[in-house]
Amino acid sequence: MNYEKIFKTAVEQVRDEGRYRVFADLERIAGEFPYARNHGPGPDRIVGWCSNDYLGQGQNPEVIEAACQAARKMGAGSGGTRNISGTHHLHVLLEKSLADLHGKEAALLFTSGYVSNSATLSTVAKLLPGCIIFSDALNHASMIDGIRQAGCERRIWRHNDLAHLEELLAAAEPGRPKMVAFESVYSMDGDVAPIAGICDLAERYGAMTYLDEVHAVGLYGKRGGGISERDGVAGRVTIIEGTLAKAFGCMGGYITGSSALVDAVRSHAAGFIFTTSLPPAVAGAALASVEYLKVHDELRQRHQERAATLKKRLTAAGLPVMPSETHIVPVLVGCPVRAKAITDDLMVTHGIYVQPINYPTVPKGTERLRLTPSPFHDDILMGNLVEALLASWAKVDLPLRNVA
Amino acid sequence: MNYEKIFKTAVEQVRDEGRYRVFADLERIAGEFPYARNHGPGPDRIVGWCSNDYLGQGQNPEVIEAACQAARKMGAGSGGTRNISGTHHLHVLLEKSLADLHGKEAALLFTSGYVSNSATLSTVAKLLPGCIIFSDALNHASMIDGIRQAGCERRIWRHNDLAHLEELLAAAEPGRPKMVAFESVYSMDGDVAPIAGICDLAERYGAMTYLDEVHAVGLYGKRGGGISERDGVAGRVTIIEGTLAKAFGCMGGYITGSSALVDAVRSHAAGFIFTTSLPPAVAGAALASVEYLKVHDELRQRHQERAATLKKRLTAAGLPVMPSETHIVPVLVGCPVRAKAITDDLMVTHGIYVQPINYPTVPKGTERLRLTPSPFHDDILMGNLVEALLASWAKVDLPLRNVA
Repeated sequence: MNYEKIFKTAVEQVRDEGRYRVFADLERIAGEFPYARNHGPGPDRIVGWCSNDYLGQGQNPEVIEAACQAARKMGAGSGGTRNISGTHHLHVLLEKSLADLHGKEAALLFTSGYVSNSATLSTVAKLLPGCIIFSDALNHASMIDGIRQAGCERRIWRHNDLAHLEELLAAAEPGRPKMVAFESVYSMDGDVAPIAGICDLAERYGAMTYLDEVHAVGLYGKRGGGISERDGVAGRVTIIEGTLAKAFGCMGGYITGSSALVDAVRSHAAGFIFTTSLPPAVAGAALASVEYLKVHDELRQRHQERAATLKKRLTAAGLPVMPSETHIVPVLVGCPVRAKAITDDLMVTHGIYVQPINYPTVPKGTERLRLTPSPFHDDILMGNLVEALLASWAKVDLPLRNVA
Repeated sequence: MNYEKIFKTAVEQVRDEGRYRVFADLERIAGEFPYARNHGPGPDRIVGWCSNDYLGQGQNPEVIEAACQAARKMGAGSGGTRNISGTHHLHVLLEKSLADLHGKEAALLFTSGYVSNSATLSTVAKLLPGCIIFSDALNHASMIDGIRQAGCERRIWRHNDLAHLEELLAAAEPGRPKMVAFESVYSMDGDVAPIAGICDLAERYGAMTYLDEVHAVGLYGKRGGGISERDGVAGRVTIIEGTLAKAFGCMGGYITGSSALVDAVRSHAAGFIFTTSLPPAVAGAALASVEYLKVHDELRQRHQERAATLKKRLTAAGLPVMPSETHIVPVLVGCPVRAKAITDDLMVTHGIYVQPINYPTVPKGTERLRLTPSPFHDDILMGNLVEALLASWAKVDLPLRNVA
């Protein structure tokens, strides 16, 4: 059995489809967001336009200092699982802070948002014999992973389509446990779920709700509690899941909910139990970042203004901005080879870093650039970006839209 | 449907079995390993005896300084997935260092050892249609998770039993892809796999091999390459998996293998693709720790001496040390309620922290204390531990062994 050949073939197939991933070898420069040193092809110093550190919080001096202080005080790692020697007081404080952020009784930390989704969804469904999960068609890979691992029945409802969700809920046996799983902000399109409407249906049909807010926490709501805070519906959602790795600029994931729910997941989820907990430096930095964003709404306002301005400028230039209600600005290319050619050109010719987004992250034929303007992307940087995009667009013979 | 009640019942069940987990709320004190501040019941300052930071590397000043430097230079988080804005040059350097450690062509980082096992095993098996996985009966939860997710046929061989493995391999169809998955050091018993013998069988029957070295990397072999380095068989193993969270004192997991294998996993594993990469501080600290341990064999020698000494002293005192060939020192209790009573007493009366190990981490009836002496646990600390154990043992009416 020639295993090497099989592995090579598996990679060749990805390459043939034009979606072989070459990682940009960078070094972000703390204090100079959105600039980074570039170890790959192109200029030494480049401007990043596709980070999920949406607010630059990873470079907030208070956040960095909290990381260093925790490392100096308690060491580089936690030294164990949460149960065996790996709970640090900072985990306890951070969980309190996150429960408070979402107005829930309790919170539980995971090593990543991916793990929080996959471990919680699979564990909760297993605790509810006969459970049916109603999953939005565009849910993230980590949720799909958890739902698959749950091994229960699942019904996929058309993306953000309340009528279809209701149809499926109404068709299910009334006595069975039900969970509606969805996101608030969908990260590749930038659209937003009708959370209140989903809660209405869930309440009507006796379902619990699982809401992934990873692309919204820190960014929406008066204190950064996400779309569920903005819309005033956090109290109606059973489980709110979030990440510390995007707007909060660190690493790790979490869930919040009732004490009983959190205790049950804590006691039964293999992906939580059998893994080393977050390092003190990560927990300390995250705690500083969450608390900072609870009281700095002006950063969120500037963020929204920057996103709106970028959309306006791209649209005015005839570039095919996809509809988005949020800070995420997708620009359609529709072909993996051209998406790669454009972004290579942006990097090498203009020192602008944008990663092409290909299948399986988005459906084939909808390959795109995904721009994430931060409060630190000023008008000059936006002007440079639009000009560079127009030049790269022309090089690959992509049409512009007619501008009125 | 009363979901709250179901979750409460799920927790009550754990409580009724005497295995409800209460996390010790601690704060390790960097520079004073193995001491920690205690935020729970008991003295303020306690001695830890159950950390997986086996060598105290999480508190090595070089490692902490590397963490702080990286955070100051590049920020608290990576800002994205490896593919989308989240590759930092430190990831590239760390992967090179790990490939070198195991003498392999390439390495790939994951957010944890749990994820490296579950993502790699499931992905590799899916790339090999018709694959059969031969799994050691005592493999870790994360490997079982990956094998379950692979959805392929699996055959469980009796723990470390070469004859049984051969029987199962011989019975399988010769033309089908096969993978033998096992660990080197089994963390709850401290016994060691016969790697060379397993490789003999794998080669004879055309199977690839997947070796989890998480409790051995940094600790065995001239440069810390694990049992496979110590036994001179690393070159015969297809995939070596390890962690940065135990002997290296940080966080994260990895695999090493051929370039083709690593590239295939990199290109297909959802648990790798769809998650934020390790923060620069974690990657920087881990790189410093791995490189440090490549050239500080004396730390490993002191570690082995300490473990041997502890076993001798516990045995001489009549305490039921379980057989172990390694640095892991399990002491049998055999009952979850008594295990909890003993460790509560150790903490409150003696300021000694040992976590009871219960089901599902170990089989019911084999509940134990799991001691992990480090190079920093000196003779005085060992004397205190033995005395405290004898006192606690008497309190719960557990017998001692006859000492010759």
